[in-house]
Amino acid sequence: MTKTIAIQGDKASFHDIAAQKYFGADIELVCCDTFTETFASVKDGHAEYAVCAIENSLFGSINETYDLLVQNHFKIVGEVYLRVEQCLIGLPGTTLADIKEVYSHPVALAQCEAFLDTQLPDAERLEFYDTAASVEKVKLIGLKSAAAIASRQAAKLHDLEILDAEIETNKQNYTRFIVLSPTAPIEPTNNKTSLIIKTSHKTGALYRALGTFAERSLTMTKLQSRPIIGKAWHYIFYVDVEAGLQDARLKAALDELSEQAAEVTILGSYQAGPKDL
Amino acid sequence: MTKTIAIQGDKASFHDIAAQKYFGADIELVCCDTFTETFASVKDGHAEYAVCAIENSLFGSINETYDLLVQNHFKIVGEVYLRVEQCLIGLPGTTLADIKEVYSHPVALAQCEAFLDTQLPDAERLEFYDTAASVEKVKLIGLKSAAAIASRQAAKLHDLEILDAEIETNKQNYTRFIVLSPTAPIEPTNNKTSLIIKTSHKTGALYRALGTFAERSLTMTKLQSRPIIGKAWHYIFYVDVEAGLQDARLKAALDELSEQAAEVTILGSYQAGPKDL
Repeated sequence: MTKTIAIQGDKASFHDIAAQKYFGADIELVCCDTFTETFASVKDGHAEYAVCAIENSLFGSINETYDLLVQNHFKIVGEVYLRVEQCLIGLPGTTLADIKEVYSHPVALAQCEAFLDTQLPDAERLEFYDTAASVEKVKLIGLKSAAAIASRQAAKLHDLEILDAEIETNKQNYTRFIVLSPTAPIEPTNNKTSLIIKTSHKTGALYRALGTFAERSLTMTKLQSRPIIGKAWHYIFYVDVEAGLQDARLKAALDELSEQAAEVTILGSYQAGPKDL
Repeated sequence: MTKTIAIQGDKASFHDIAAQKYFGADIELVCCDTFTETFASVKDGHAEYAVCAIENSLFGSINETYDLLVQNHFKIVGEVYLRVEQCLIGLPGTTLADIKEVYSHPVALAQCEAFLDTQLPDAERLEFYDTAASVEKVKLIGLKSAAAIASRQAAKLHDLEILDAEIETNKQNYTRFIVLSPTAPIEPTNNKTSLIIKTSHKTGALYRALGTFAERSLTMTKLQSRPIIGKAWHYIFYVDVEAGLQDARLKAALDELSEQAAEVTILGSYQAGPKDL
């Protein structure tokens, strides 16, 4: 059955590619301009799931996604890792010397800075709201003086040419996306749980909190602190643990955390995605 | 004796205010456009110290500063906390209805978004490289249609009027600045040490690393993970501990970290600054 998936961005954007990697090709996209709209689409029933970037291997956690998760009481039901490959895309037959303007999402432009500096030093960089949409824009302009930076899939969708591939500065560029739903059944295959921990401000409080996992040989794959807004120099911690909520060790760890008076918010329990590294 | 201090920004910028809070008024500024230039000024001997923002209570760690610290082998020799108060500044007699353009650093504009949205919804927001310089710009324009967002000190320096004060959305807006030098004497008054820890990828490695501090009742005031560029899903940790390098407990903790095969980079040992919260 076709599933409806809310994403930020257009068809052939990296969010679309992530959604297809998780759900397969038989999906109907609800394309949104912002992460907030993506969550709203699921809340309003326009989409069953949302797929949303949560961390990039170069830039770290995407706080907006964590905030929206907590605000909307959504649960993480899955995750997808994607290697982000950027391509320079233009009209067929375009040469680098033709290009005067390069359109893309600001993050993609930043990821290809070295390429732009050396190969297209005189081209103007123009920020656009989505990588795939910038390819459509170049097609509409219809001139060899314009190019876009986006995925291979975006070039194919809009029938334009890949002028150069793998133009991102750092090839170890992966994004982790989460799959979100208002409800989350506990599945026996769940082997990863994401949570937010707020410890007391006592010496060693964080150490004792992490001990609840370490002492049960539960592997943490993520520990990221974040300032608490409005409470200067106090932090919360984003934690990922390699165990499902049904795992007795994790249950015991959560009980012990509660005894330590740490505040815990469960963001979701799901099956860990393949990393393709 | 007058000390020469490199800062990013101009006179009366928040970096200048932080430098004066630490060194007193008898300083000579070396004003730089970027953090990289600030570090270069000290390296080239044009300045004795640099004062550089490293963390904001709303936005978290400033990775660029950490990177420059490691690259330049500089040491942290002190720290300063500053409450960031933003003012709307213009020609004497300017009313909100006069203002058509607001100049400031993009971070300051973002910090005052709620004020701008409600009080100046029709004014254009124009990004400038420095808050204090945007006040000078408004003075040069010489029209009541232009205003700037900057510190009280910037209004005073350029003899303009504070049209409104505390216009930042979140009043719990503090920035922590570090004082840097190529050399760092170990002083008996040092009671805080900043380090970067890279643990092995084994289960519980971070927990054991933090245990070296917790078991000696050493308080951590910061633990921030950051992705290792080029090594996806591996992290380093920025750690601040409430003890000087001369403290026997910290020495023992560092020895134990070394036995655990954790890589440790000492960023500096210094006297903790007052937080003024």
